[in-house]
Amino acid sequence: MAETAQPVVKRLALIGLGLIGSSLARVAQREKLAESIVLFDASDKVRTRLHELKIGDVVAETAEAAVKDADLVILCVPVGANEAVGRLISPHLKDGSILSDVGSVKSSVVSALSPYLSEEVHLIPAHPVAGTEYSGPDAGFADLFLNRWCIITPLEGVEEAPLGILRSFWERAGANVELMTPNHHDLVLAITSHVPHLIAYNIVGTAADLEEVTQSEVIKFSAGGFRDFTRIAASDPTMWRDVFLNNKDAVLEMLGRFNEDLAALQRMIRWGDGDGLFELFTRTRTIRRGIIEQGQETAAPDFGRRTKH
Amino acid sequence: MAETAQPVVKRLALIGLGLIGSSLARVAQREKLAESIVLFDASDKVRTRLHELKIGDVVAETAEAAVKDADLVILCVPVGANEAVGRLISPHLKDGSILSDVGSVKSSVVSALSPYLSEEVHLIPAHPVAGTEYSGPDAGFADLFLNRWCIITPLEGVEEAPLGILRSFWERAGANVELMTPNHHDLVLAITSHVPHLIAYNIVGTAADLEEVTQSEVIKFSAGGFRDFTRIAASDPTMWRDVFLNNKDAVLEMLGRFNEDLAALQRMIRWGDGDGLFELFTRTRTIRRGIIEQGQETAAPDFGRRTKH
Repeated sequence: MAETAQPVVKRLALIGLGLIGSSLARVAQREKLAESIVLFDASDKVRTRLHELKIGDVVAETAEAAVKDADLVILCVPVGANEAVGRLISPHLKDGSILSDVGSVKSSVVSALSPYLSEEVHLIPAHPVAGTEYSGPDAGFADLFLNRWCIITPLEGVEEAPLGILRSFWERAGANVELMTPNHHDLVLAITSHVPHLIAYNIVGTAADLEEVTQSEVIKFSAGGFRDFTRIAASDPTMWRDVFLNNKDAVLEMLGRFNEDLAALQRMIRWGDGDGLFELFTRTRTIRRGIIEQGQETAAPDFGRRTKH
Repeated sequence: MAETAQPVVKRLALIGLGLIGSSLARVAQREKLAESIVLFDASDKVRTRLHELKIGDVVAETAEAAVKDADLVILCVPVGANEAVGRLISPHLKDGSILSDVGSVKSSVVSALSPYLSEEVHLIPAHPVAGTEYSGPDAGFADLFLNRWCIITPLEGVEEAPLGILRSFWERAGANVELMTPNHHDLVLAITSHVPHLIAYNIVGTAADLEEVTQSEVIKFSAGGFRDFTRIAASDPTMWRDVFLNNKDAVLEMLGRFNEDLAALQRMIRWGDGDGLFELFTRTRTIRRGIIEQGQETAAPDFGRRTKH
């Protein structure tokens, strides 16, 4: 992390204080990324909780008030909520300010926000690839972004200065920054995040619906592999519904490939092609090694998890 | 764990000293489950390593020698190797001894072993539902079975006394014991273990084969969900090839259901059915809660894993 405590921006506004927003607020406070941090969440309950948690400097009562005079506004709401929030706040954004977000889909965010913005506001979408299966302002923590990647997807013709500010902000929050186009982002995330979530949700649903195997048996014997899937199938339903509705094309494309490959595997099982199975099962070990080497995963067996004894 | 240190059997023979076999040897030694523990592994390298690791009392040079005079013989080899080992050792098994195994498939193990056994040997298949993504004698540890389930699948007409001995053995090794038929076991494990492994291997394979998204991007951005799948897709290829070849019917049945459900989800995405997606994504949270409550999983975010910082 940077050695200087010089704030990256004067006034930071965070809209939406769930897992990501509240983690950002915490790290921005700890690392002094802004002179003042203004928070707004549409839920009364969350706003009350924010006062108790003492994160940020001000809890605003409206989104419009929160963004007033802000130099950097980051929307941390479910992807499907960006348009409504964008429409609401756009008249109140300061000339020269940066509007960014943290959504898991990028092309649709650009389409949702662009129509409302004046030319004086710099729209620079971003997506920190980090999270847990928990949601809400209590689930956040300042180290969430540490050594994770934040993908920034600048639009054509973006100015260097505001892009540099957003990059510094994320780097000071602990993240590594990578730039790509919104479309490429959506394709990369479809395979590294969206389809994995979809098939995790799906197998947990399949297991819940069986007649021959009881739910109690599924729970008892989940240590055989199933329980790993239930973690990501416990993620926030609103967030994930919005992801699938807003990244339809890329998800369907990757899902199509997944299905083709699965059909081939199914065929190998039916016809007893042991060599084919063995070849795939060997090949897949390499990728995990890369993930561990690059610090994106622990090498401890079973993720190092400790279950109740 | 039991308070008495009275051994469960006089002589225990373990054939195959990978993750499961070497964990069993370690816990049997620590908990004094046998007066003597004899080990055999077909690999010279593993036998040499066993001498260094100092687990068990004797490392035999042949499987036949290992099982001689043993009261309890447990085969800890890949499912597909049981038949060859059974044929080899059966003439050397003591009258009244118990032959068991740890395979992830049970019906095929019964078919593989039964033809070679005299009526004086008690065949009682078992399956401890526990493991990690690592393999080999160094990967084992004595607590592997602690608070995990061991499923025993006795055949019709099994005698109470030997069944009681095997049950005590597993309970003293830290496991909870459940009885069911081999066929039902194979169905339960197909959904809780085999299909989850298959789809994990599959998505890692799909990701490795993309042209538009590079392998380096898949690795970098794996924290979006993908990396969870790579853990189980790093499991032992030989073991898993054998599982799929030997539990074909149950795996194809469960995979068929998974595919139907996935097709329905795919359709919801294509047609923008947000309510349908939200309903499934909400329902799947309950099962994880059950798994955590029953001590089969940690409640810590992200499995409590700590990646390199």
